[in-house]
Amino acid sequence: MLNDKLNWRYATKKMDPSKAVSDEKLEAILKAIELAPTSSGLQPYEVLVVTNPDVRAKIKDVAWNQGQIVDGSHLLVFAAWDNYTEARVDSVTDQMAEERGGRSETLDAYYTNLKNMYLPRDADVNFEHAARQAYIALGFALAAAAVEEVDSTPMEGFDPAAVDEILGLKERGLRSVLLLPLGYRAEEGDWLVNMKKVRRPRDKFITTI
Amino acid sequence: MLNDKLNWRYATKKMDPSKAVSDEKLEAILKAIELAPTSSGLQPYEVLVVTNPDVRAKIKDVAWNQGQIVDGSHLLVFAAWDNYTEARVDSVTDQMAEERGGRSETLDAYYTNLKNMYLPRDADVNFEHAARQAYIALGFALAAAAVEEVDSTPMEGFDPAAVDEILGLKERGLRSVLLLPLGYRAEEGDWLVNMKKVRRPRDKFITTI
Repeated sequence: MLNDKLNWRYATKKMDPSKAVSDEKLEAILKAIELAPTSSGLQPYEVLVVTNPDVRAKIKDVAWNQGQIVDGSHLLVFAAWDNYTEARVDSVTDQMAEERGGRSETLDAYYTNLKNMYLPRDADVNFEHAARQAYIALGFALAAAAVEEVDSTPMEGFDPAAVDEILGLKERGLRSVLLLPLGYRAEEGDWLVNMKKVRRPRDKFITTI
Repeated sequence: MLNDKLNWRYATKKMDPSKAVSDEKLEAILKAIELAPTSSGLQPYEVLVVTNPDVRAKIKDVAWNQGQIVDGSHLLVFAAWDNYTEARVDSVTDQMAEERGGRSETLDAYYTNLKNMYLPRDADVNFEHAARQAYIALGFALAAAAVEEVDSTPMEGFDPAAVDEILGLKERGLRSVLLLPLGYRAEEGDWLVNMKKVRRPRDKFITTI
């Protein structure tokens, strides 16, 4: 059952560097990310899969020295579009037309309307909107990793500008928003592994109307 | 397999008003939301489960008249904290202490540090950070709904201030960020149901380093 797996997962604090996530499990996680829905289908982010140890060591240095970044076998970096642009929206529209049987007035009107709304806005507003979409994909990645019994640690605690520099993201019009090391828990060194999962009482979290 | 379910799901455009999501399936979806991780465990949002037809009709009026809001059996509203406050952070700290065996210097230092970072910031920056967390929970909700074979339609297209007014959210320090109708697809009236799911080519979406 999915919720048993979601209950099993936790933000792993210590990973075992001797264990690697298999290609098959990695692919299941990447596929889930790919299947995540996004506003108007734009998928306004990219995902970097970093295994290179030197690159991961550099990222660790600008991420409060969190060991999971190098002790896991893979580091996923979610990087959102720095802005919505005509070329980016048109590329999605073209692909929709190609894969869904041609252009239509409805399709063109939809994305023209979207450009009229997005393109005049501040880049920061658009980036923020793009970043939110990446968080949906993070949710899918966390769920897929849990189902595969792969440990993961979602991280916002890093210097995004420094990570962008290390990975050359700025030149690609991207800004890092989330890190997600994947690997396997090292129980003996992990202070969180045996802690109770704490959530707000249901009546302070969910209201029925 | 999870990805088969995630592939099955789509942003349902037309729901069948004669079919209702069972209490059991609703609970599985709410439980997944509850299990979603959030930055520092703050869970900086609440979820409203709206079944009242009059309230849903009012929300539909300020949400581009999207029929799923009333044709589904349940409408989930994700509402983020409008700001981080001392009381909100302290309440989480107190609960952590209570459920994890008492206060500790480490626990207190962690959340004191968090307050020093969050409390002086602009409310809008804090709200934006809280809103992002709600998107992780949206990801969990969509995945759980798919596993339960419940249809859903994530929506950003609504007037948040108007929804806040209808639900009395402002007085509770909340701001609506996402709507998620739950129900069952009405295939005959849904233009999207038989369309191919379109995603960017893998090599433009995922980079390996």
